[in-house]
Amino acid sequence: MDRIGFIGLGRMGKSMALNLRKAGFDLVVFDINKTAVTELADAGAAAGADVESLARQCSIIITMLPSSKEVEQIMLGEGGVLACAGAGTVVMDMSTIDPLATDKLHALAAAAGLSWVDAPVGRLAEHADRGESLIMVGASEDDFRRVKPLLDAMGTTIYHCGPVGTGGRTKLVNNYLAVSLCQINGEALALSQRFGLDITKTLQVLYGTSATNGQLRMNFPHKVLVGQNEPGFTIDLAHKDMSLVVNAAHASKVPMPVAAAVHESFSLARAADFGGQDFSCIADAICQLANIEKPRVPSNWSPD
Amino acid sequence: MDRIGFIGLGRMGKSMALNLRKAGFDLVVFDINKTAVTELADAGAAAGADVESLARQCSIIITMLPSSKEVEQIMLGEGGVLACAGAGTVVMDMSTIDPLATDKLHALAAAAGLSWVDAPVGRLAEHADRGESLIMVGASEDDFRRVKPLLDAMGTTIYHCGPVGTGGRTKLVNNYLAVSLCQINGEALALSQRFGLDITKTLQVLYGTSATNGQLRMNFPHKVLVGQNEPGFTIDLAHKDMSLVVNAAHASKVPMPVAAAVHESFSLARAADFGGQDFSCIADAICQLANIEKPRVPSNWSPD
Amino acid sequence: MDRIGFIGLGRMGKSMALNLRKAGFDLVVFDINKTAVTELADAGAAAGADVESLARQCSIIITMLPSSKEVEQIMLGEGGVLACAGAGTVVMDMSTIDPLATDKLHALAAAAGLSWVDAPVGRLAEHADRGESLIMVGASEDDFRRVKPLLDAMGTTIYHCGPVGTGGRTKLVNNYLAVSLCQINGEALALSQRFGLDITKTLQVLYGTSATNGQLRMNFPHKVLVGQNEPGFTIDLAHKDMSLVVNAAHASKVPMPVAAAVHESFSLARAADFGGQDFSCIADAICQLANIEKPRVPSNWSPD
Amino acid sequence: MDRIGFIGLGRMGKSMALNLRKAGFDLVVFDINKTAVTELADAGAAAGADVESLARQCSIIITMLPSSKEVEQIMLGEGGVLACAGAGTVVMDMSTIDPLATDKLHALAAAAGLSWVDAPVGRLAEHADRGESLIMVGASEDDFRRVKPLLDAMGTTIYHCGPVGTGGRTKLVNNYLAVSLCQINGEALALSQRFGLDITKTLQVLYGTSATNGQLRMNFPHKVLVGQNEPGFTIDLAHKDMSLVVNAAHASKVPMPVAAAVHESFSLARAADFGGQDFSCIADAICQLANIEKPRVPSNWSPD
Repeated sequence: MDRIGFIGLGRMGKSMALNLRKAGFDLVVFDINKTAVTELADAGAAAGADVESLARQCSIIITMLPSSKEVEQIMLGEGGVLACAGAGTVVMDMSTIDPLATDKLHALAAAAGLSWVDAPVGRLAEHADRGESLIMVGASEDDFRRVKPLLDAMGTTIYHCGPVGTGGRTKLVNNYLAVSLCQINGEALALSQRFGLDITKTLQVLYGTSATNGQLRMNFPHKVLVGQNEPGFTIDLAHKDMSLVVNAAHASKVPMPVAAAVHESFSLARAADFGGQDFSCIADAICQLANIEKPRVPSNWSPD
Repeated sequence: MDRIGFIGLGRMGKSMALNLRKAGFDLVVFDINKTAVTELADAGAAAGADVESLARQCSIIITMLPSSKEVEQIMLGEGGVLACAGAGTVVMDMSTIDPLATDKLHALAAAAGLSWVDAPVGRLAEHADRGESLIMVGASEDDFRRVKPLLDAMGTTIYHCGPVGTGGRTKLVNNYLAVSLCQINGEALALSQRFGLDITKTLQVLYGTSATNGQLRMNFPHKVLVGQNEPGFTIDLAHKDMSLVVNAAHASKVPMPVAAAVHESFSLARAADFGGQDFSCIADAICQLANIEKPRVPSNWSPD
Repeated sequence: MDRIGFIGLGRMGKSMALNLRKAGFDLVVFDINKTAVTELADAGAAAGADVESLARQCSIIITMLPSSKEVEQIMLGEGGVLACAGAGTVVMDMSTIDPLATDKLHALAAAAGLSWVDAPVGRLAEHADRGESLIMVGASEDDFRRVKPLLDAMGTTIYHCGPVGTGGRTKLVNNYLAVSLCQINGEALALSQRFGLDITKTLQVLYGTSATNGQLRMNFPHKVLVGQNEPGFTIDLAHKDMSLVVNAAHASKVPMPVAAAVHESFSLARAADFGGQDFSCIADAICQLANIEKPRVPSNWSPD
Repeated sequence: MDRIGFIGLGRMGKSMALNLRKAGFDLVVFDINKTAVTELADAGAAAGADVESLARQCSIIITMLPSSKEVEQIMLGEGGVLACAGAGTVVMDMSTIDPLATDKLHALAAAAGLSWVDAPVGRLAEHADRGESLIMVGASEDDFRRVKPLLDAMGTTIYHCGPVGTGGRTKLVNNYLAVSLCQINGEALALSQRFGLDITKTLQVLYGTSATNGQLRMNFPHKVLVGQNEPGFTIDLAHKDMSLVVNAAHASKVPMPVAAAVHESFSLARAADFGGQDFSCIADAICQLANIEKPRVPSNWSPD
């Protein structure tokens, strides 16, 4: 049976690792945060002394880290995963990083006799807690089969998008749309507010036409529309993903004028201290900066 | 029983008038296009000699015209509706026009002792053919009750949005979202294409997350994604609606950076001769101008 | 000798009319503001009873009005200029209006046997006070010769841009650039401020490269950079001109993504109550909304 | 006397190194391109065997490299400049790179007992050939004095912008403006062309108002306006600089909506194969994509 290494026990990673333990996998974990490591150890995981020792004893190694920089730090160099893992090991990076960084790491891994899988995670932290993540996977057919049982322990909706690199790229396409939906919904609601329309009547119309969308239907009614700004996904993180989208688009010569405009709107919202709020609250930022009344529905209102 | 006047027998208006006849309403029609008038006469409507005579004999007068300019021409001046209709007449404009023009006409109508209703029509021409339009109505409670039987003959989904002026404003909010969805879907698909992703796998993911939206789910699979550019709603008309949105936003000091970026993208598409295609084909325009392969699914593909 | 009619004695128009009187022209004036009319009468002008009587006694009629709407009101209808002026009269509109309105009025004037000249005014109100305006003229060669002595009394820099319609169009191109320069200077200074650069050193560099521009070199040092927001030209007026630019661009299928972005920035500034400030103060609006320190130079600083 | 190391003999670097030799400096050079090294050796420079040996024998080390990546490769690691140069050495990076990379390298250099200077180069390659560059310098007062004689050999206009990091940041502010000027001039000329204006008359007006700018006055008449697309500075390089600007702005929360729109316009131009043309030719790209006639002046035309 594969021994599984897991590096990166942050808000999402810890829950994912715990779900792997619940499913009975033999787990070695590593993080610079010792509290998180202890929590996993209490759940029966082994605590890796460092990246090198973890890499030497595992045949599947998962990383869940904040950005390209941390992933490269863990992978490269003398005591890094690529130098220390045995031939045939599968490295599965579940972080959301620059696809060009994935391509580079994939090539280096291949040169070292390792397999690479990119499997970034969709949905929110609460879904990860419950093992209900959506996961977009770029992998060879063989590697996908090998990691599938692990993915099934962490998520309920697993998409095999294609070869290595397609998982992260699909996530960028997806998150571009989700974040841009927040922005266009925000502009639409600002216009509705300034027009003096009854917002519940406006929403009722929008839900019944081709203007409907996942953010307006599923996220907004529980967040910004009821004045709830606790983040499922923050404006700061949405901004970070838009930076990845815009940089990837420019690297591959894809003009995306709306992506750029959305990026700037989120930049303005961050500068005006909205960074820690749920990304639906971009609607509040738009309204506040323009002296428009924030869009709110009655507390007992339901879209249905 | 009310005698109903109907002015404007274009692609949409003719079908709407025919549906009123089918429902048995007593109808007088007028259009500069004599063929359309004859068709209605064959269906049992009376042909008005001119706007003045129509206005003098009807107690509810409907207009369905291309833009503010034509509506004002019909309404104002010596032989216009406002001068000739009897006190208590309800004028119901179903055109999509500038809300400030509606406000002005409403005030002039009130001064002349007439009621005004703005009731622009959503959905496509085919829906109007079948009497299945969605209609957004701005009217007093009394006037709404009075026109409701007529609306029920022309559409299946009737929203009373609020007082006069709210019908047209709600339509602008709605159409801003629908058109912007086409643009962001287009940018997302352009990115997906340049990334070399399998488009059906990308769509499958998008349909399962908060990135899903009415245009991507309902319109795109029957139009641009199968290379079908016959318009349900043209890029030219979408551009016209965005002009109304942008002008209304500027008149009321609502900053809408994405609306502006979408407007420019449609302007570029029109300059590059895409104006007559379905508005989902903005995705093709984005790809063609940037030398990206157009997004297509296999002809036997279904989103489900 | 021609008798000159002058309609519209606002902030600019009054000074222009006074300069015509100083140069000795025989002047009849009209405005709904009686104080301004009295001031001109004191300077030796005749006060027109109404537009009709003015039109009947003048062979050159000048208008200087806020927008297309007022120009059309004065020109059209029974007692309007086009109906009442004698054949051969030259109508010279010096307002800044939609070029398509100019084209329409030109055609109607020609049909009535009148000549049309569009001659919008550049530079600031203070320049108009001193007879130092810049004037962009669209006129036939003959009409240009006929109005040239009048223009020389009102301005120092007279450009004959081409046939009727080219004056207003040239002004739109010019004002698009001037307003957009304010915006890009504003963004550049916001970046410089956030970077913590010494603004006088940054300006010294910019003045010495191809980044230099008329707004940064000539307007900014006397306005926003010294905290002087008294308008030479307001953000509201700049916004109005950008509306004309954007609408003209859309009417003629010219994609102008930066024009649209500038338009939205000015819309946001207006919504945040900067509308009455000098248009260079868009830099302050950008900084204030994003919590960036406003760009200021020492009071004794000089660009040279 | 200082021995000077020079790493990076590309299109600009070679000319700069040759000018140092002409001024009599004792020079050691390194580049992976052996032809360039030979050319410098013929001019009396010593050829460094590798970065390490160069670093060990020089007390001032200049780098002129394409991007952050190459600068970091040369500086970091075992045989890198920071590890091999003697205490007190001044490292002067004249490349245009990400200011955050400069900050990081500066800190690492300081920890190694070395001084850092950032001194990116303005103007064109031809200016570098003639020793007429404009150079923006971030350095301590002492270090600035030490490198000043070298800078005087390479350029005619040397600005000491402030402490380390301000040279590169000032260049970003400057290049943002220069590139954006090309874009707004391009949009203005597209509008002028579609309006059917005489372009020489339009330019004459623009040169006389606050709309004038360095690009329109100095670069355009020798490049795009006469159909000369040979680059002084390419659209690809302008796009690269805009990427640095946009990324720096997002890293420091400066909303720059026009920067983003310009960035997208250059991205579209690159996708449409304009990347190798002079950056003034963005005007041609805008016109070609929108089916507008390209802006051209007669070959014998002069702006004066």
